[in-house]
Amino acid sequence: MFLSELMPVKQVHRIINSTLNQTNTEKILLEESYLRILAQNVISQLNSPPFDRSAMDGYALQAQDTFGFSEQNPANFIVIDRIGAGTVSNMTVKKGEAVKIATGAPLPQGTDAVVMEEYTNERRDHLEVDSSITPGENVSFQGEDIRKGDVVLKKGKLLQPQDLAIIATAGYDNVEVYRKPRVGIITTGSELVTPHSDIHGAEVINSNHYTLKALVESCLAIPTLNHSIDEAELVEKEFKKMLRNNDVLITTGGTAISKGDVVVDVASNLGEVMIHGVSIRPGKPFAYAQIDDKPVFMLSGYPVAAMVQYDVLVREHLLEMQNLKWKPPTVKKKAARKIPSTLGRTDYIRAKTNGYEVKPLKIKGSGIIRSMVESNSYIIIEENLEGIMEGEMCDVLLYNSQRV
Amino acid sequence: MFLSELMPVKQVHRIINSTLNQTNTEKILLEESYLRILAQNVISQLNSPPFDRSAMDGYALQAQDTFGFSEQNPANFIVIDRIGAGTVSNMTVKKGEAVKIATGAPLPQGTDAVVMEEYTNERRDHLEVDSSITPGENVSFQGEDIRKGDVVLKKGKLLQPQDLAIIATAGYDNVEVYRKPRVGIITTGSELVTPHSDIHGAEVINSNHYTLKALVESCLAIPTLNHSIDEAELVEKEFKKMLRNNDVLITTGGTAISKGDVVVDVASNLGEVMIHGVSIRPGKPFAYAQIDDKPVFMLSGYPVAAMVQYDVLVREHLLEMQNLKWKPPTVKKKAARKIPSTLGRTDYIRAKTNGYEVKPLKIKGSGIIRSMVESNSYIIIEENLEGIMEGEMCDVLLYNSQRV
Repeated sequence: MFLSELMPVKQVHRIINSTLNQTNTEKILLEESYLRILAQNVISQLNSPPFDRSAMDGYALQAQDTFGFSEQNPANFIVIDRIGAGTVSNMTVKKGEAVKIATGAPLPQGTDAVVMEEYTNERRDHLEVDSSITPGENVSFQGEDIRKGDVVLKKGKLLQPQDLAIIATAGYDNVEVYRKPRVGIITTGSELVTPHSDIHGAEVINSNHYTLKALVESCLAIPTLNHSIDEAELVEKEFKKMLRNNDVLITTGGTAISKGDVVVDVASNLGEVMIHGVSIRPGKPFAYAQIDDKPVFMLSGYPVAAMVQYDVLVREHLLEMQNLKWKPPTVKKKAARKIPSTLGRTDYIRAKTNGYEVKPLKIKGSGIIRSMVESNSYIIIEENLEGIMEGEMCDVLLYNSQRV
Repeated sequence: MFLSELMPVKQVHRIINSTLNQTNTEKILLEESYLRILAQNVISQLNSPPFDRSAMDGYALQAQDTFGFSEQNPANFIVIDRIGAGTVSNMTVKKGEAVKIATGAPLPQGTDAVVMEEYTNERRDHLEVDSSITPGENVSFQGEDIRKGDVVLKKGKLLQPQDLAIIATAGYDNVEVYRKPRVGIITTGSELVTPHSDIHGAEVINSNHYTLKALVESCLAIPTLNHSIDEAELVEKEFKKMLRNNDVLITTGGTAISKGDVVVDVASNLGEVMIHGVSIRPGKPFAYAQIDDKPVFMLSGYPVAAMVQYDVLVREHLLEMQNLKWKPPTVKKKAARKIPSTLGRTDYIRAKTNGYEVKPLKIKGSGIIRSMVESNSYIIIEENLEGIMEGEMCDVLLYNSQRV
């Protein structure tokens, strides 16, 4: 797998994107919809407020009855009713009359303003008002927040806490969202074992099992995991099983070109391998296939390479399947050191930011897990650059900005 | 509730923080630990790599046997064994011998380097090596990533995908984390109803039910919800029930000082009300109590006020209960407009950012839900400021930066 045969990152995205299918939609309870992606426009069935209501605790009255009055010369009223939130007054208020009203209660007929309790003095239904108020004061008018028929949220929106409030207020207790993609994950590698304190012979702990599960969860998808040793027959069996029950398949390991690397051969038996080899570092041995119309992402077995491939080549497509448009939100930082790179290759360099500065970690090898824990970001060096000079501004992708 | 009686935000945090108890800890499966908070230091039980291993597909040999050789004058070897990942060679390699080796396989005895397949030519166990390599080339040495006994992660860390990889590599398939706080939520308000298309009389849709559930979930806690009308006896019954089964209680509504506001009275019957009234806007009618040694956060019934109170006065404490130190990550932006404020009060102004600029939304009232959906941030005006001038830099808290 030489550099000349490797596909540029942009082309990889274009191919993957052209083959993806959005998941279908499902109606779920509104209270289960936090961090789901809207599959409908939400059109309000209601006005909000549903009626003219008091914005304060106080007295509803006709504003003109207070005109010209003050603390020295208070206006006088008779209190003819008292209403809390949730109750309606049956009275019609006339000149010189007032209704004691709680925040949120509907304005009684005949009133056009509310005077705050603080500016009044009540003794046995006799009320003094110390200030002159204007019509509409302390009133929230019907529909002033949302009007019936308004589109309050649009298809494709990732639902946040406040979005749930507006959907409820629009009159809905359920909502149409995209189904979470079911993602089958097969880790491959005859040397891989589950974690324990006592490693024998050539055994290596399968850390990808844990990382990949979490990475898929971070894309609002549902992972199912299994493992296979490097035997084509067994890998193929796992492929078939996982593809039956999932929308997407992700594998790790077996994507290079030596004898033990059977994964891409299996994919090519079962479907069409569209990409094999990408010009990124780390992460060159990446492959992508379509099998039974389903996307198959084949990642490297190296933990760090697999993580970079996921972040660069998988993440945005899993979100796109749920109709969420998402691009890695890179920021500009000043390079603390010179960083060499090679023309024609995109580099993702593990780095640590410190305010406006970013410093590449000193590491070698793509299997060094500690570097992923000690770094907080990638410095991205695009394929048209031969490197970054010390002090130059460069593109940085913070790991924690990747969560939607 | 006048300004002079209101408690500054900093003092509120100090009081709440002094009364909080961390949740106890639990051992869970490593694969369930994404976005949980570590309750232990993780000390590696293993070296990683567990043995000197090949970093490439190629041939393991003694580097000195290649010294001085080149493409024009290749070195000659006999291939005496072939090993894949997961297998160990029993051979001891001597001068002029080589072992074909896969990435990740242990280096056979007697070898000190690996030559990449690309620089070789093999025909029937006879190998030509085209280049001179140095000892250690393409070898990952035992313990070069993690040494047995290393502290690889510390207590209090929010677990990210890559953290799971390092815990696995340290030899563990389970991990000690803080238990998620169980949070009882009681929405109060006789006027509140569940969402439907047909609102009668003085009914108002209970949107806080949905927002609060999602907000609590965003703090990695487990919400349980119930509703009560504004009757002290019923509210008290709910308080008792919720406090029995939860670590924290959050209420909405009934925190002001008019007749229908029974929540703070109930809290004061059952425990100690330590705070009532905070000098923030919106969100003044906030109260905090301790009942049965458990924290009780009493929020306003107004949707926007409740959300601000949650973001400012609840969020960091729910995380702190899980031993996660978190402060709202404010950034500096340029104010697009003059914003007046009042000395002695902290303002949280719904705003929208546009690059380096931030613009306050034109809104009135604290019940306007649409403003929470159309804004993406708060402009925070500290209590010692009388406002912000147009063009001045101000503190901005982006909503989506609040998720841990």
